This record gives sequence, C-alpha cells and structure tokens, in this order.
Amino acid sequence: MSRTEIATIGEFGLIRRLTEDIKLINESSKYGVGDDAAVLTYPSEKQVLVTTDLLMEGVHFDLVYVPLKHLGYKAAVVNFSDIYAMNGSPKQITVSLAISKRFSIEDIEEFYTGLRLACEQYHVDIVGGDTTSSLTGLAISITCIGEADKDSIIYRNGAKETDLICVSGDLGAAYMGLQLLEREKSVFKGEKEVQPDFSGKEYLLERQLKPEARADIIKRLAEASIKPTAMMDISDGLSSELLHICTQSKVGCRIYEEHIPIDYQTAVMAEEFNMNLTTCALNGGEDYELLFTVPIADHEKISEMEGIKLIGHITKPEMGCALISRDGQEFELKAQGWNPLQEEKK
Amino acid sequence: MSRTEIATIGEFGLIRRLTEDIKLINESSKYGVGDDAAVLTYPSEKQVLVTTDLLMEGVHFDLVYVPLKHLGYKAAVVNFSDIYAMNGSPKQITVSLAISKRFSIEDIEEFYTGLRLACEQYHVDIVGGDTTSSLTGLAISITCIGEADKDSIIYRNGAKETDLICVSGDLGAAYMGLQLLEREKSVFKGEKEVQPDFSGKEYLLERQLKPEARADIIKRLAEASIKPTAMMDISDGLSSELLHICTQSKVGCRIYEEHIPIDYQTAVMAEEFNMNLTTCALNGGEDYELLFTVPIADHEKISEMEGIKLIGHITKPEMGCALISRDGQEFELKAQGWNPLQEEKK
Repeated sequence: MSRTEIATIGEFGLIRRLTEDIKLINESSKYGVGDDAAVLTYPSEKQVLVTTDLLMEGVHFDLVYVPLKHLGYKAAVVNFSDIYAMNGSPKQITVSLAISKRFSIEDIEEFYTGLRLACEQYHVDIVGGDTTSSLTGLAISITCIGEADKDSIIYRNGAKETDLICVSGDLGAAYMGLQLLEREKSVFKGEKEVQPDFSGKEYLLERQLKPEARADIIKRLAEASIKPTAMMDISDGLSSELLHICTQSKVGCRIYEEHIPIDYQTAVMAEEFNMNLTTCALNGGEDYELLFTVPIADHEKISEMEGIKLIGHITKPEMGCALISRDGQEFELKAQGWNPLQEEKK
Repeated sequence: MSRTEIATIGEFGLIRRLTEDIKLINESSKYGVGDDAAVLTYPSEKQVLVTTDLLMEGVHFDLVYVPLKHLGYKAAVVNFSDIYAMNGSPKQITVSLAISKRFSIEDIEEFYTGLRLACEQYHVDIVGGDTTSSLTGLAISITCIGEADKDSIIYRNGAKETDLICVSGDLGAAYMGLQLLEREKSVFKGEKEVQPDFSGKEYLLERQLKPEARADIIKRLAEASIKPTAMMDISDGLSSELLHICTQSKVGCRIYEEHIPIDYQTAVMAEEFNMNLTTCALNGGEDYELLFTVPIADHEKISEMEGIKLIGHITKPEMGCALISRDGQEFELKAQGWNPLQEEKK
C-alpha cells in the first residue's frame, strides 16, 4: 500500500478527505461536520443518550495484530453497545483522533473505512470530531448520541429481589481471542516465518477483533414485550458488571456456574492455555453482550427466547453477591475485570 | 501536596472520588455519571449542539508551566466557546481522561477543580466520561452538548457580500502569553533560581492560561437584536477562521490592519520579542474571541457596542481574501494558524 504523509495535506486537508462524502441518514442529524458544532434535532418525546469512550494505543489496542479497519469498526461498536444497554438506539457519533507521525493518510483512511462500515451497519451518522497530532501513538475518542422513548430507558439501578438475571450470547470468547493473538504476536512482528494457524478459532478472533452490539436483542425484547428492570453491557467482565447492577440497585445476587453461556471454542482454548474457564467468562471482558434482569413473571417468555441465558436471580442485599459452583459451593463475586488504573493483581 | 497513587483506588474509585458530589443544575440534564450513558431531555423547540475537543500533552499543553487547575478550566471553556459560536448555550459536558502513572489522585483532583469551576461559571453539568490509563502523558477529551432555539443557530456559511466583519475583544494576547511562558520555561523547570518577572504582563498570561468564552457577547448581540449572518470562534487564528467563513459562504473579504484590535501589552511584548504584531494577531490562535459578520444595515447598532471592533467587510468571491495594510497595500490572507498536522513552515 502506498504511504502518503499526513503533513502533506495538514489537519483540514485530512478532515476534508475523510469526511467530504459523508451523507447524513438520520432525521435527527441536521448538520454534521464542518462548523463549530454539529446540530441535532430530537423530538420532545425522545430522550437523548450520550456516552463516550477514550481508547489509547498500547493500553486498549495493540496495532501489531489489530488491523486499523477493525479498530475503527470496534471503536464505534463499543459505543453503540452502551446506547443499546440503555434500551436506546445510537444515532450520531463524533470521532476525535490524535495521530503520531508513524501514521499515514492511508492508515487513517483504513480506520475510517471500518468506522464508516460500523456506522452504516447500525444506521449511525458521523457528525463531527477533532483531528490532531500526538507525540506517541494513536488516541481515539468517540462520543455517541442516541435516543430512547421517555419511558423505555433502562438504568442499572432497577433490579428487584426475585428478578431473573439474564445474559445474551456467550462470554469469555473475546478474552480468549486476545490471549490467542498475544501468543502469536511474534508472528505478526515478523519474528517467526511460520503463519499462525487460527483454523477452528475464527470465532474467538472475531469476538475480539470485530465485536457487534446487541441491537437484535433489544429489538426482540421489545417485540416480546419484555422490559428489563436493569441492564448494562458487558465490557469489563460479567462479575464487575453484575456488581455494578447490585450496588446501584441495592440488592444481592446468586448466579450459577453451570448456566454461564460459554462457546465450545472458548472452552477448548481455555483448556489449551490451562486457564480456568469460569474465571475467563466471569472476568474476561470485551464481550459486549447484554446483562439484564427481568421480573420473575417473565420467566416463561424469557426462557423461550433464543440466544438468552438465565444465569441466576436477584436476592436481598444482605445475601451478598455470589457464584454457585457446579459442586454447590458458594463463592463471593469480585470485580476482577479489566481495570486499567488498578494495581496489578498479585 | 501529598501524593496518592491512582492505583490504590483504581478506575472506579477515582471516578467515584471525582464525581460523587456533582449536582446537576440544568433541566435538560436528567441523569449524569453512573450508567452506560447520560440521559438528557431537550424540548422540541430547541436544537441540540455537539462539539468535541481532544487535547494531548506535549502538543496542546505543557505541564511544565500550565497548572492542572488552569488546564481543567481551559479544557472546558474552549468547548463552551464552540457552542457560543453557534449562538447556543452550553449545557452538559462529558470528560474523558487518559492518565499515565506520573499523575497522582491529587493531580487529577486539581484538574477537576478547574473543570468544575468552569462548569459552575458557565452553568454547565458534567454528565459523564471515561477515565483510563495512558502509557505516556495525559490525554483529555471533552464533548460539550448545548442548546439553541431552532431559528437562532448561526453557521459559518451565511456571510453575504457587503456584510461587515466584526471581532470581539482583542487578538494575539494568548499567543504572546505562550511565547512568554516558553521563554521562562527554564525557570519553571527549576534550572534557574530567579523568579520570572511577569509584572505588567498579567493580561497575556491570563489570556493563555485562563481564557473565557464570550457568553457576554452572545447575550448582548441578542439584546441589541443583532443576528450575525455567520459566526465562529477564533481558536486557530483570525486568518484561518476568516478563510473558513469565506470558503463556506462562497465570498471574499477585505480586512484592515489598522482596525484589528490589539491590546497594549500584546504590542509591547511583540516589540520585545521582535515579532510582527499583525502576524501575531492574524495567526496567533487561542484567543477564543468571536468572529462574525452582520448585515450592513446593522452598522450603527454594532458600532455602538462596546468590545466589538469592525475590521472589514465581505466582498464578491472573485475579490479573494485580503488584508489591507496601514500603507494601503493588499496582502492575500493565508491560513498560517496553528495546524498540528501540517509540515513546519519553511
């Protein structure tokens, strides 16, 4: 691929090149890139949701094995996921990039290709941003704006005693994908001549490199007239997120090891790495599945829904938060999920 | 000041510490920090404005001489300025920080003190954000959400032939303040024992370290029933911004050197540094003054307004964009403002 230095066209030239053919598709997007601010129009029956993520090279992603196109896709999708987790629909994003001299125009176009693909897929408009330079590495800040009907927003704090705890999809695969990529890093660096053999492990790589936000689950819950009492997306790991829901809802919980949904490839890989599978599923993170609670009255309806697993139930707060293992033992849930500012676990 | 490592409390501990006593003051701020997304409610007669800025240590600020409290204040205010430049009012911000190990909890609290001071001053709510780690330096990403009445938004593309070109305040002082701080950098580093003598130069330092957004000008224009045809804030320098307005409005312009507002301290400092004063005012940047155009029919009204200077007029596009010097010579305006991704000027 050819390499054109960004310095040849400067900030405004780059922004023009990346954004000139962007079309706005949402009614609420009135004016996009090109002025001091984007202009949005939301009808009064809607509430506006805002979420933001800052991703730093070397902390959140490793460009040795993450293609820029995938990074663009993922950076957008993880923000959409937060909006769905409020029971809303993402509508606009702003995209800020700080770019070091290592990156060419073509690199940033690759990133934008992935970003725009995600936006097309989820019907989201790119309405603004900031493009600037960085002394080291790439920094990506995305803010996503979405909408929800006034009465349909679902917070983390609505879980009630006896509610059922549900998760969509399966857990731990994205983390296993990361382990796999880390193991083969020397190959990507060109230090080894052999190609890594990823056959049979495609699902794990896809979960790590190209996650999707569960718009489909939100839609199906609405169609089935199920309104969760609390909901969030699983980005830092099931344990960590469940503790957020319990703390904010002032309740306890019991979840059952045997009910945690895990894909076959995840299990095989954990075995290969000699890792505890349940720990991976509880603390792995980056699954972007939905964790939610529903009233026990919805038991039958939710049990019939494909791709949703019942993993436990909400209890009185004094019961604490625990995992019941396959052999019936009770373990206190701890937030061991990904926490970039925490001290290393010893 | 004592120093507590962020690692002792982790990401969630830090967020809690920084945000636990935040109160929401705006009616449109329904739910702030603590869920997957913030929830805002805007009435349908309002349009929602969104702007974002990404600031990188070493590129946008130098912590050798910028106190973290001032940095917090400025990081917020520059975003408010973009909302005012659309003729709107800022209402909410989200704040994302990526922090390297160099920073302590107290450092980040300092930053937040400045940030919150700016928010109080301008009646803006902190409704969300992201706090994470960085391998090197500090990265700050702020998104500001504001509102404007449907018919009162002012874009960059509305300037018409014969319109008058106006600027608020004075130009070049922030740039001179930066030069001054750069000159005294060795003192801040402790390499020299003497204290820098900033007396008589306080205005320049304040313009650089603690800029304000011109909410007052927006208010007074509305009170005088003057609606600019085009407007933006001057962050990259007058030349660069005026070219944006002319390009987007498809017009030309003439501005007059003798009418460009410059403070006495700026002039003294330019002399001391042996710099061309007009070049500093045209290209210095970071003034956060408002640049706007008004119909010629408003000439009398605008001339009477304090703190606003008429610097020229809009022309047909084929006239190009030019500065008329004190001796009547015509110079083509060029965007030589701050452009972090451009090659160094030779």
